[in-house]
Amino acid sequence: MSRKIHIFDTTLRDGEQVPGAKLNKRQKIEIAKQLEKLKVDVIEAGFPCSSPGDLEAVRAISREVKGPVIAALARAVKEDIDIAWEAVREAQKPRIHVFLGSSDIHIQKKLRSDRNKAMAMAVEAVKYARSLCPDVEFSTEDGSRTEFGFLCRIIEETIKAGAGVINVPDTVGYALPEEYGDLVRRLRESVPALERVLLSVHCHNDLGLAVANSIAAIRNGADQVECTINGIGERAGNASLEEIVMVLKTRSEIYQTKTDIDTKEIYRTSRMVSRIMNIPVQPNKAIVGSNAFSHSSGIHQDGVLKDRTTYEIMKPEELGIKQQTIVLTARSGRSALRHRLVELGFSLESELFERIYNRFIDVADRKKEINAQDLQSIVEIEVSKVPETYKMHSIQIMSGNKMVPLASVTLEHDGKLYTDAATGNGPVDAVFKGIERITGIPGTLRDYDLKAVTMGTDALGEAMVRVEFGEDIYSGIGTSPDVIEASARAYLNACNRYFANGGGATTKSPDGVGG
Amino acid sequence: MSRKIHIFDTTLRDGEQVPGAKLNKRQKIEIAKQLEKLKVDVIEAGFPCSSPGDLEAVRAISREVKGPVIAALARAVKEDIDIAWEAVREAQKPRIHVFLGSSDIHIQKKLRSDRNKAMAMAVEAVKYARSLCPDVEFSTEDGSRTEFGFLCRIIEETIKAGAGVINVPDTVGYALPEEYGDLVRRLRESVPALERVLLSVHCHNDLGLAVANSIAAIRNGADQVECTINGIGERAGNASLEEIVMVLKTRSEIYQTKTDIDTKEIYRTSRMVSRIMNIPVQPNKAIVGSNAFSHSSGIHQDGVLKDRTTYEIMKPEELGIKQQTIVLTARSGRSALRHRLVELGFSLESELFERIYNRFIDVADRKKEINAQDLQSIVEIEVSKVPETYKMHSIQIMSGNKMVPLASVTLEHDGKLYTDAATGNGPVDAVFKGIERITGIPGTLRDYDLKAVTMGTDALGEAMVRVEFGEDIYSGIGTSPDVIEASARAYLNACNRYFANGGGATTKSPDGVGG
Repeated sequence: MSRKIHIFDTTLRDGEQVPGAKLNKRQKIEIAKQLEKLKVDVIEAGFPCSSPGDLEAVRAISREVKGPVIAALARAVKEDIDIAWEAVREAQKPRIHVFLGSSDIHIQKKLRSDRNKAMAMAVEAVKYARSLCPDVEFSTEDGSRTEFGFLCRIIEETIKAGAGVINVPDTVGYALPEEYGDLVRRLRESVPALERVLLSVHCHNDLGLAVANSIAAIRNGADQVECTINGIGERAGNASLEEIVMVLKTRSEIYQTKTDIDTKEIYRTSRMVSRIMNIPVQPNKAIVGSNAFSHSSGIHQDGVLKDRTTYEIMKPEELGIKQQTIVLTARSGRSALRHRLVELGFSLESELFERIYNRFIDVADRKKEINAQDLQSIVEIEVSKVPETYKMHSIQIMSGNKMVPLASVTLEHDGKLYTDAATGNGPVDAVFKGIERITGIPGTLRDYDLKAVTMGTDALGEAMVRVEFGEDIYSGIGTSPDVIEASARAYLNACNRYFANGGGATTKSPDGVGG
Repeated sequence: MSRKIHIFDTTLRDGEQVPGAKLNKRQKIEIAKQLEKLKVDVIEAGFPCSSPGDLEAVRAISREVKGPVIAALARAVKEDIDIAWEAVREAQKPRIHVFLGSSDIHIQKKLRSDRNKAMAMAVEAVKYARSLCPDVEFSTEDGSRTEFGFLCRIIEETIKAGAGVINVPDTVGYALPEEYGDLVRRLRESVPALERVLLSVHCHNDLGLAVANSIAAIRNGADQVECTINGIGERAGNASLEEIVMVLKTRSEIYQTKTDIDTKEIYRTSRMVSRIMNIPVQPNKAIVGSNAFSHSSGIHQDGVLKDRTTYEIMKPEELGIKQQTIVLTARSGRSALRHRLVELGFSLESELFERIYNRFIDVADRKKEINAQDLQSIVEIEVSKVPETYKMHSIQIMSGNKMVPLASVTLEHDGKLYTDAATGNGPVDAVFKGIERITGIPGTLRDYDLKAVTMGTDALGEAMVRVEFGEDIYSGIGTSPDVIEASARAYLNACNRYFANGGGATTKSPDGVGG
């Protein structure tokens, strides 16, 4: 009999805390819908008290995404819990996730409190959350560094107070697999009340051990793992969902567990999260890196040719990695495009479809063939768009290594066209300065990355920027067969996000959340 | 008493098997010298029988790099061993590393042999290697899937035959930490002869467990770990050196082991390997990712401000991560540049220094300030250059989203200038086509990536390409404040590597090497 392991995805909460990876509502919904297809058990959709925008996004996910539990994070205080409940109350299966530091270092240094007060605070918060929502999770933040006796007591008391899930995180990524597995086993032995609830773990990757710690905990009795797509998250990130799931699947004879994850959606989810959040996946990332299965297509390994099992323990098809062969051209028309988008898993409203169709025609006019990856890039970029305060009309550049690069930029704003020109160290610099002259907002480029979406010199280029406007950093993404235009679109996307945010009035997260 | 763990770095062998990451001699020496500074115990410098170029590179490392053992890989056949010895015989401390598949699946499917023949082959190979070299390592390829009794016997016999190091790799990345730790413990109990030699492990990361498996093995008695910088390597890569070293250091109270690694060189080594091999490090990579310590500079976490230990278990300074503040300008002159390069750890011959100085002036003329990261990029790119069959003279582009992009390219070849022009989907495409018209060699772009080395719109852009010429893929790298020029330089670098290789006559690795 296989024991069910609950997969709690926190890509939209812990993953979104990565600097510059902040998402808008539309993007969060798009990812949440993909997580639903992946069949995760719980989607931690956000930390609603951190900003009105996050509250709104979690509320929208609660309305639109059925299937998984929708969880919202809250500190152990009434105001946070009220806002969290506000965010998830319309979900089919809502959960409030309350956390409080339980290690002495967190209680004394961060909360400036003592164990008794922390205990009282936790119990009261769980009771209050439970009065609103039938499903309450309590996290003992920095659990792996918490004194064992106190950890047992706070777990017992919060279960009594009504928590249905108890999470014991390794907040700082300090634990070792044996140690963490041991902790779970001892908790099971020492706290009989855990039989009545789900025991959850949440591991960070500071020492590269998040996945190993998670599976050690599962082997020792954990019921739920909290993880993210591609292992993204603060600092070195969280445990990677795809690695945990594939360990449990590939070595099921050892673990005797099962998850409900549809592994064929793993690759697509990984790509979508990477692109929408602007966080690249390194080629040698386990399971989803571009080289993870490269022996089968790259270096012709004698062994693999003779028998795949000599070097291969998973099949790429299990993860939904397949060669996409059907291509579209500028003459393909609306219905062919719509058909292909559905095949790729995108179900789009008609207004968004029209925007994508227009962009598709624009790109297809210049690039002969549009394949699945090109399309995916175009869709993801249109989905990630905010209202376009300034819209790209045209750019023109002249550049060379023996001349001063210059650019002219024409943007549309409130129905009127504005044109200006600038020089720069290079054509991209000149274009960015031209945009700056029109918008009047000085920005500092913090990060710039450009890559080819597909192979060939006529590949679509995808630019990602992070720009500092005022005190905040905004990311932007743009695509075009022309790298300069892709860069300009990405920069303009970042500008528009700044304007959509009221020109800089973004609300920062309260306190440190490290759960 | 701390037990010493030997760090065997295989970045230049297993790491270099990544598609497109092939290095030239100069690059291999540069990385080997950095590994010497990092104080690894063993550098596996290559697989000399795979190509005359690799033989030459390993031989050069053997001559130039003192301190670490220099190892060369060889299949269990006389010809390979002869070539490996040829490559390392001039090293201060040479090692021949012989491997042979020991699992039934490898013996039957790959070698089309049986256990008795495999045993005889292994013993004979070790004896022969030992007749040439005092230090011989034997690897039981696919060791973790080898029948335990046979594994014990082949280890006993190869120790008798003269092996001083026995390596039991998890070739396919299938093992789990408990399992692999257990295997090491049982081997120690069952094969007393292991007391006289070093027991080594070598883990692959297909399930994301390479580091966890390595440290489980160490805890159960392994003396040596084989690993790579940034965890690069075939498929999902090898165990990451920096993660293993920092687990052992951060949790030394548990492991009671020590390594000789100078952790302050970790960050620099990571950057150098990533850049020279064109393999990006994802931001949430443990230890060396750009976000690994981002809480201290990015999101202002209340906890960290009150006390660093609330969320931080390592200090960035331990890894040599520091803010580089001194900048150079076009007026800085030769001696300031030389001084700064020495500070950055580069000791350069005068011919190379002149080339770097010229490139520095060229870049500094267009970019106001040159900081440490810019310099590092310039140096690494010059170091990675092959003889320039075609040399960049000038490029010029005109482009825009409402016009046909066009480029003129002038290259120097045999002292003469050649100019041509082309149009393209974008300016980069046009420039690449212009280069193609001059060189006459059609290439297919397989990968393209461009990123800013530093912050600000006047950042230096660094382009990486992989281009398929004929049947082989060549990588190229180029840098410039102008992204189009950086792209052109990268493409030209790939062309020149193709010409340096005799126009396509590269030798492929024999057989699959998965150790």
